[in-house]
Amino acid sequence: MRILGVDPGSVVCGYGVVETSGGRYVTAGTIRCKSLAPGPERLQRIHEGLLFIIDEFSPRALSLERHFVAANVQSAFRIGEARAMAMLAAAERRLPMFEYPPNEVKLCVAGHGHADKAQVKYMVRKTLKLDPAIELADDAADALALALCHLGHGRIPNIVDAVERFRPGAPRRSRTRMVPQ
Amino acid sequence: MRILGVDPGSVVCGYGVVETSGGRYVTAGTIRCKSLAPGPERLQRIHEGLLFIIDEFSPRALSLERHFVAANVQSAFRIGEARAMAMLAAAERRLPMFEYPPNEVKLCVAGHGHADKAQVKYMVRKTLKLDPAIELADDAADALALALCHLGHGRIPNIVDAVERFRPGAPRRSRTRMVPQ
Repeated sequence: MRILGVDPGSVVCGYGVVETSGGRYVTAGTIRCKSLAPGPERLQRIHEGLLFIIDEFSPRALSLERHFVAANVQSAFRIGEARAMAMLAAAERRLPMFEYPPNEVKLCVAGHGHADKAQVKYMVRKTLKLDPAIELADDAADALALALCHLGHGRIPNIVDAVERFRPGAPRRSRTRMVPQ
Repeated sequence: MRILGVDPGSVVCGYGVVETSGGRYVTAGTIRCKSLAPGPERLQRIHEGLLFIIDEFSPRALSLERHFVAANVQSAFRIGEARAMAMLAAAERRLPMFEYPPNEVKLCVAGHGHADKAQVKYMVRKTLKLDPAIELADDAADALALALCHLGHGRIPNIVDAVERFRPGAPRRSRTRMVPQ
Protein backbone atom coordinates (compact mmCIF):
# COMPACT_ATOMS: atom_id res chain seq x y z
CA MET A 1 0.00 0.00 0.00
CA ARG A 2 1.21 3.50 -0.81
CA ILE A 3 0.74 6.83 0.97
CA LEU A 4 0.79 10.19 -0.80
CA GLY A 5 2.03 13.18 1.21
CA VAL A 6 1.16 16.64 -0.14
CA ASP A 7 2.67 19.96 0.91
CA PRO A 8 0.46 22.49 -0.91
CA GLY A 9 1.49 26.02 -1.81
CA SER A 10 -0.02 28.49 -4.25
CA VAL A 11 3.09 28.49 -6.47
CA VAL A 12 4.93 25.26 -5.54
CA CYS A 13 3.14 22.11 -4.39
CA GLY A 14 5.33 19.30 -3.05
CA TYR A 15 4.34 15.63 -3.30
CA GLY A 16 5.91 12.39 -2.13
CA VAL A 17 4.80 8.75 -2.31
CA VAL A 18 6.02 6.12 0.16
CA GLU A 19 5.32 2.38 0.20
CA THR A 20 4.02 1.23 3.59
CA SER A 21 5.89 -2.09 3.54
CA GLY A 22 9.34 -1.14 4.80
CA GLY A 23 8.70 2.59 4.30
CA ARG A 24 10.19 2.47 0.80
CA TYR A 25 10.57 5.62 -1.34
CA VAL A 26 8.45 5.54 -4.52
CA THR A 27 8.57 9.05 -5.93
CA ALA A 28 8.68 12.72 -4.92
CA GLY A 29 8.76 16.09 -6.62
CA THR A 30 7.04 19.43 -7.01
CA ILE A 31 4.27 20.85 -9.16
CA ARG A 32 5.43 24.35 -10.08
CA CYS A 33 3.27 27.20 -11.37
CA LYS A 34 4.30 30.52 -12.87
CA SER A 35 4.18 32.94 -9.94
CA LEU A 36 2.63 35.63 -12.16
CA ALA A 37 -0.06 33.32 -13.59
CA PRO A 38 -3.65 34.11 -12.55
CA GLY A 39 -4.87 32.32 -9.39
CA PRO A 40 -7.43 30.07 -11.16
CA GLU A 41 -4.80 28.90 -13.67
CA ARG A 42 -2.34 28.03 -10.88
CA LEU A 43 -4.97 26.08 -8.94
CA GLN A 44 -5.96 24.16 -12.07
CA ARG A 45 -2.34 23.16 -12.67
CA ILE A 46 -1.96 21.92 -9.06
CA HIS A 47 -5.27 20.03 -9.26
CA GLU A 48 -4.40 18.33 -12.55
CA GLY A 49 -0.87 17.56 -11.32
CA LEU A 50 -2.15 15.87 -8.15
CA LEU A 51 -4.73 13.81 -10.09
CA PHE A 52 -1.92 12.69 -12.43
CA ILE A 53 0.27 11.62 -9.48
CA ILE A 54 -2.64 9.70 -7.89
CA ASP A 55 -3.50 7.93 -11.17
CA GLU A 56 0.15 7.14 -11.89
CA PHE A 57 1.22 5.82 -8.47
CA SER A 58 -2.11 4.59 -7.00
CA PRO A 59 -1.69 5.65 -3.35
CA ARG A 60 -4.37 4.45 -0.92
CA ALA A 61 -4.36 7.47 1.43
CA LEU A 62 -3.42 11.16 1.36
CA SER A 63 -1.52 12.87 4.18
CA LEU A 64 -1.78 16.66 4.48
CA GLU A 65 -0.47 19.26 6.89
CA ARG A 66 -3.02 20.72 9.31
CA HIS A 67 -2.31 24.44 9.39
CA PHE A 68 -2.93 26.52 12.49
CA VAL A 69 -1.14 29.75 11.68
CA ALA A 70 -0.44 31.97 8.69
CA ALA A 71 1.67 35.11 8.25
CA ASN A 72 -1.51 37.14 7.62
CA VAL A 73 -5.12 36.74 6.46
CA GLN A 74 -4.24 36.99 2.75
CA SER A 75 -1.65 34.27 3.23
CA ALA A 76 -4.27 32.11 5.01
CA PHE A 77 -6.63 32.53 2.02
CA ARG A 78 -3.85 31.41 -0.36
CA ILE A 79 -2.95 28.39 1.83
CA GLY A 80 -6.66 27.45 1.98
CA GLU A 81 -6.96 27.67 -1.80
CA ALA A 82 -3.93 25.44 -2.38
CA ARG A 83 -4.99 22.93 0.33
CA ALA A 84 -8.40 22.69 -1.33
CA MET A 85 -6.78 21.23 -4.46
CA ALA A 86 -5.37 18.32 -2.45
CA MET A 87 -8.68 17.84 -0.62
CA LEU A 88 -10.63 17.85 -3.88
CA ALA A 89 -8.21 15.41 -5.57
CA ALA A 90 -8.57 13.07 -2.55
CA ALA A 91 -12.38 13.22 -2.76
CA GLU A 92 -12.42 12.71 -6.54
CA ARG A 93 -10.19 9.61 -6.31
CA ARG A 94 -11.90 8.40 -3.10
CA LEU A 95 -8.71 8.48 -1.01
CA PRO A 96 -9.13 8.84 2.75
CA MET A 97 -7.39 12.03 3.87
CA PHE A 98 -5.46 12.47 7.10
CA GLU A 99 -4.14 15.71 8.57
CA TYR A 100 -1.18 16.19 10.90
CA PRO A 101 0.03 19.35 12.65
CA PRO A 102 3.55 20.49 11.61
CA ASN A 103 5.04 19.78 15.05
CA GLU A 104 3.75 16.23 14.96
CA VAL A 105 5.29 15.66 11.52
CA LYS A 106 8.67 16.98 12.72
CA LEU A 107 8.49 14.95 15.93
CA CYS A 108 7.60 11.81 14.01
CA VAL A 109 10.32 12.19 11.36
CA ALA A 110 13.17 14.02 13.12
CA GLY A 111 12.37 13.18 16.76
CA HIS A 112 11.94 16.86 17.64
CA GLY A 113 8.78 19.00 17.28
CA HIS A 114 10.83 22.09 16.46
CA ALA A 115 13.27 20.53 14.00
CA ASP A 116 14.24 22.86 11.14
CA LYS A 117 13.78 22.18 7.43
CA ALA A 118 17.33 20.89 6.96
CA GLN A 119 16.98 18.40 9.84
CA VAL A 120 13.65 17.13 8.48
CA LYS A 121 15.14 16.74 5.01
CA TYR A 122 18.20 14.91 6.38
CA MET A 123 16.03 12.50 8.37
CA VAL A 124 13.66 11.91 5.44
CA ARG A 125 16.64 10.96 3.23
CA LYS A 126 18.06 8.75 5.97
CA THR A 127 14.77 7.01 6.83
CA LEU A 128 14.01 6.26 3.18
CA LYS A 129 17.68 5.36 2.45
CA LEU A 130 17.55 7.75 -0.49
CA ASP A 131 20.29 7.49 -3.09
CA PRO A 132 22.44 10.69 -2.84
CA ALA A 133 21.96 11.06 -6.61
CA ILE A 134 18.24 11.73 -6.08
CA GLU A 135 17.71 15.47 -5.68
CA LEU A 136 15.02 16.47 -3.24
CA ALA A 137 13.36 19.91 -3.20
CA ASP A 138 12.36 21.28 0.23
CA ASP A 139 8.65 20.96 -0.57
CA ALA A 140 9.09 17.39 -1.82
CA ALA A 141 10.95 16.50 1.42
CA ASP A 142 8.11 18.02 3.48
CA ALA A 143 5.59 15.97 1.49
CA LEU A 144 7.60 12.77 2.11
CA ALA A 145 7.75 13.68 5.82
CA LEU A 146 3.94 13.89 5.84
CA ALA A 147 3.67 10.46 4.22
CA LEU A 148 6.18 9.04 6.74
CA CYS A 149 4.26 10.64 9.62
CA HIS A 150 1.11 8.84 8.46
CA LEU A 151 3.08 5.58 8.33
CA GLY A 152 4.26 6.19 11.90
CA HIS A 153 0.68 6.72 13.01
CA GLY A 154 -0.48 3.64 11.15
CA ARG A 155 2.03 1.52 13.07
CA ILE A 156 0.64 2.43 16.52
CA PRO A 157 -2.85 0.90 16.03
CA ASN A 158 -1.14 -2.08 14.33
CA ILE A 159 0.90 -2.74 17.47
CA VAL A 160 -2.11 -2.19 19.75
CA ASP A 161 -4.13 -4.59 17.59
CA ALA A 162 -1.38 -7.22 17.72
CA VAL A 163 -1.11 -6.98 21.53
CA GLU A 164 -4.89 -7.21 21.88
CA ARG A 165 -5.09 -10.23 19.58
CA PHE A 166 -2.62 -12.19 21.71
CA ARG A 167 -4.22 -11.33 25.07
CA PRO A 168 -6.35 -14.36 26.08
CA GLY A 169 -10.09 -13.64 26.12
CA ALA A 170 -9.65 -10.09 24.81
CA PRO A 171 -12.54 -8.71 22.72
CA ARG A 172 -11.84 -7.90 19.06
CA ARG A 173 -10.89 -4.27 18.46
CA SER A 174 -11.61 -2.47 15.25
CA ARG A 175 -8.88 -0.27 13.80
CA THR A 176 -9.64 3.42 13.84
CA ARG A 177 -8.15 6.26 11.90
CA MET A 178 -5.83 8.31 14.04
CA VAL A 179 -6.57 11.78 12.68
CA PRO A 180 -9.68 11.39 10.55
CA GLN A 181 -10.93 14.25 8.34
CA MET B 1 -24.11 37.37 -22.54
CA ARG B 2 -24.50 36.02 -18.99
CA ILE B 3 -22.54 36.66 -15.80
CA LEU B 4 -22.28 34.14 -12.95
CA GLY B 5 -21.86 35.54 -9.44
CA VAL B 6 -20.60 33.15 -6.77
CA ASP B 7 -20.67 33.65 -2.99
CA PRO B 8 -18.66 30.68 -1.72
CA GLY B 9 -18.91 29.20 1.75
CA SER B 10 -17.72 25.86 3.10
CA VAL B 11 -21.29 24.67 3.82
CA VAL B 12 -23.50 26.91 1.62
CA CYS B 13 -22.36 28.32 -1.72
CA GLY B 14 -24.63 30.91 -3.35
CA TYR B 15 -24.81 31.37 -7.13
CA GLY B 16 -26.71 33.76 -9.37
CA VAL B 17 -26.79 34.25 -13.14
CA VAL B 18 -27.74 37.56 -14.75
CA GLU B 19 -28.14 38.41 -18.44
CA THR B 20 -26.11 41.47 -19.41
CA SER B 21 -28.74 42.81 -21.85
CA GLY B 22 -31.12 44.69 -19.57
CA GLY B 23 -29.68 43.08 -16.42
CA ARG B 24 -32.29 40.28 -16.59
CA TYR B 25 -32.48 37.58 -13.87
CA VAL B 26 -31.72 34.09 -15.20
CA THR B 27 -31.35 31.87 -12.13
CA ALA B 28 -30.08 31.86 -8.55
CA GLY B 29 -29.84 29.42 -5.69
CA THR B 30 -27.51 27.69 -3.27
CA ILE B 31 -25.38 24.56 -3.25
CA ARG B 32 -25.78 23.10 0.24
CA CYS B 33 -23.50 20.55 1.91
CA LYS B 34 -24.05 18.57 5.08
CA SER B 35 -22.26 20.59 7.75
CA LEU B 36 -20.88 17.41 9.33
CA ALA B 37 -19.61 15.95 6.03
CA PRO B 38 -15.81 15.71 5.69
CA GLY B 39 -14.11 18.75 4.12
CA PRO B 40 -13.04 17.02 0.88
CA GLU B 41 -16.59 15.73 0.29
CA ARG B 42 -18.07 19.22 0.79
CA LEU B 43 -15.57 20.80 -1.59
CA GLN B 44 -16.29 18.15 -4.23
CA ARG B 45 -20.02 18.87 -3.98
CA ILE B 46 -19.46 22.63 -4.41
CA HIS B 47 -17.07 22.04 -7.33
CA GLU B 48 -19.48 19.69 -9.13
CA GLY B 49 -22.42 22.00 -8.43
CA LEU B 50 -20.64 25.02 -9.92
CA LEU B 51 -19.56 23.08 -13.02
CA PHE B 52 -23.20 21.99 -13.48
CA ILE B 53 -24.44 25.60 -13.23
CA ILE B 54 -21.81 26.77 -15.75
CA ASP B 55 -22.66 23.98 -18.21
CA GLU B 56 -26.40 24.54 -17.80
CA PHE B 57 -26.53 28.34 -18.08
CA SER B 58 -23.38 29.10 -20.13
CA PRO B 59 -22.19 32.31 -18.42
CA ARG B 60 -19.28 34.13 -20.06
CA ALA B 61 -17.63 35.49 -16.90
CA LEU B 62 -17.48 34.73 -13.18
CA SER B 63 -17.73 37.39 -10.49
CA LEU B 64 -16.35 36.60 -7.02
CA GLU B 65 -15.99 38.49 -3.76
CA ARG B 66 -12.45 39.62 -2.91
CA HIS B 67 -12.03 38.91 0.79
CA PHE B 68 -9.83 41.03 3.01
CA VAL B 69 -10.84 39.93 6.48
CA ALA B 70 -11.90 36.78 8.30
CA ALA B 71 -13.07 36.10 11.86
CA ASN B 72 -9.89 34.11 12.52
CA VAL B 73 -7.16 32.15 10.72
CA GLN B 74 -9.17 28.90 10.65
CA SER B 75 -12.07 30.77 9.11
CA ALA B 76 -9.71 32.27 6.50
CA PHE B 77 -8.51 28.75 5.57
CA ARG B 78 -12.14 27.60 5.13
CA ILE B 79 -13.01 30.68 3.00
CA GLY B 80 -9.90 30.05 0.88
CA GLU B 81 -10.87 26.41 0.36
CA ALA B 82 -14.41 27.31 -0.76
CA ARG B 83 -13.21 30.19 -3.00
CA ALA B 84 -10.80 27.78 -4.67
CA MET B 85 -13.74 25.73 -5.98
CA ALA B 86 -15.11 28.76 -7.85
CA MET B 87 -11.63 29.66 -9.13
CA LEU B 88 -11.01 26.10 -10.34
CA ALA B 89 -14.43 25.87 -12.03
CA ALA B 90 -13.71 29.18 -13.82
CA ALA B 91 -10.33 27.90 -15.04
CA GLU B 92 -11.74 24.53 -16.13
CA ARG B 93 -14.51 26.18 -18.20
CA ARG B 94 -12.20 28.98 -19.38
CA LEU B 95 -14.31 31.78 -17.87
CA PRO B 96 -12.53 35.04 -17.07
CA MET B 97 -12.81 35.70 -13.34
CA PHE B 98 -13.31 39.11 -11.75
CA GLU B 99 -13.08 39.97 -8.05
CA TYR B 100 -14.79 42.80 -6.21
CA PRO B 101 -14.41 43.92 -2.59
CA PRO B 102 -17.61 43.62 -0.48
CA ASN B 103 -17.93 47.41 -0.05
CA GLU B 104 -17.78 47.92 -3.81
CA VAL B 105 -20.52 45.32 -4.36
CA LYS B 106 -22.77 47.01 -1.77
CA LEU B 107 -22.05 50.47 -3.19
CA CYS B 108 -22.77 49.28 -6.72
CA VAL B 109 -26.03 47.49 -5.85
CA ALA B 110 -27.46 49.41 -2.88
CA GLY B 111 -25.73 52.78 -3.34
CA HIS B 112 -24.03 52.50 0.06
CA GLY B 113 -20.74 50.71 0.87
CA HIS B 114 -21.99 49.71 4.30
CA ALA B 115 -25.48 48.52 3.32
CA ASP B 116 -26.68 45.53 5.33
CA LYS B 117 -27.75 42.15 3.94
CA ALA B 118 -31.46 43.06 3.90
CA GLN B 119 -30.83 46.28 1.95
CA VAL B 120 -28.66 44.45 -0.60
CA LYS B 121 -31.31 41.75 -1.01
CA TYR B 122 -34.07 44.36 -1.42
CA MET B 123 -32.10 46.22 -4.09
CA VAL B 124 -31.15 43.02 -5.91
CA ARG B 125 -34.86 42.06 -6.11
CA LYS B 126 -35.79 45.59 -7.23
CA THR B 127 -33.01 45.92 -9.84
CA LEU B 128 -33.81 42.53 -11.36
CA LYS B 129 -37.60 43.10 -11.07
CA LEU B 130 -37.85 39.73 -9.35
CA ASP B 131 -41.28 38.17 -9.05
CA PRO B 132 -42.25 38.14 -5.32
CA ALA B 133 -43.04 34.43 -5.76
CA ILE B 134 -39.32 33.72 -6.34
CA GLU B 135 -37.70 32.94 -3.00
CA LEU B 136 -34.15 34.18 -2.61
CA ALA B 137 -31.72 32.85 -0.01
CA ASP B 138 -29.25 35.37 1.45
CA ASP B 139 -26.28 33.68 -0.25
CA ALA B 140 -28.09 33.61 -3.60
CA ALA B 141 -28.88 37.34 -3.25
CA ASP B 142 -25.20 38.05 -2.50
CA ALA B 143 -24.20 36.06 -5.59
CA LEU B 144 -26.66 38.04 -7.76
CA ALA B 145 -25.26 41.26 -6.25
CA LEU B 146 -21.78 40.18 -7.38
CA ALA B 147 -23.04 39.50 -10.91
CA LEU B 148 -24.80 42.91 -10.95
CA CYS B 149 -21.64 44.59 -9.67
CA HIS B 150 -19.71 43.14 -12.60
CA LEU B 151 -22.42 44.43 -14.97
CA GLY B 152 -22.08 47.89 -13.42
CA HIS B 153 -18.34 47.80 -14.02
CA GLY B 154 -18.81 46.55 -17.56
CA ARG B 155 -20.98 49.56 -18.36
CA ILE B 156 -18.29 52.12 -17.52
CA PRO B 157 -15.80 51.10 -20.25
CA ASN B 158 -18.78 50.72 -22.62
CA ILE B 159 -19.75 54.36 -22.05
CA VAL B 160 -16.13 55.52 -22.33
CA ASP B 161 -15.76 53.56 -25.57
CA ALA B 162 -18.95 55.06 -26.98
CA VAL B 163 -17.85 58.62 -26.16
CA GLU B 164 -14.41 57.98 -27.67
CA ARG B 165 -15.90 56.52 -30.86
CA PHE B 166 -17.97 59.64 -31.53
CA ARG B 167 -15.16 62.12 -30.81
CA PRO B 168 -13.83 63.22 -34.25
CA GLY B 169 -10.26 62.10 -34.91
CA ALA B 170 -10.01 60.17 -31.63
CA PRO B 171 -7.70 57.12 -31.63
CA ARG B 172 -9.31 53.68 -31.10
CA ARG B 173 -9.28 52.51 -27.47
CA SER B 174 -9.19 48.89 -26.49
CA ARG B 175 -11.52 47.72 -23.72
CA THR B 176 -9.78 46.68 -20.57
CA ARG B 177 -10.97 44.56 -17.66
CA MET B 178 -11.70 46.64 -14.62
CA VAL B 179 -10.52 44.25 -11.92
CA PRO B 180 -8.58 41.53 -13.72
CA GLN B 181 -7.45 38.39 -11.93
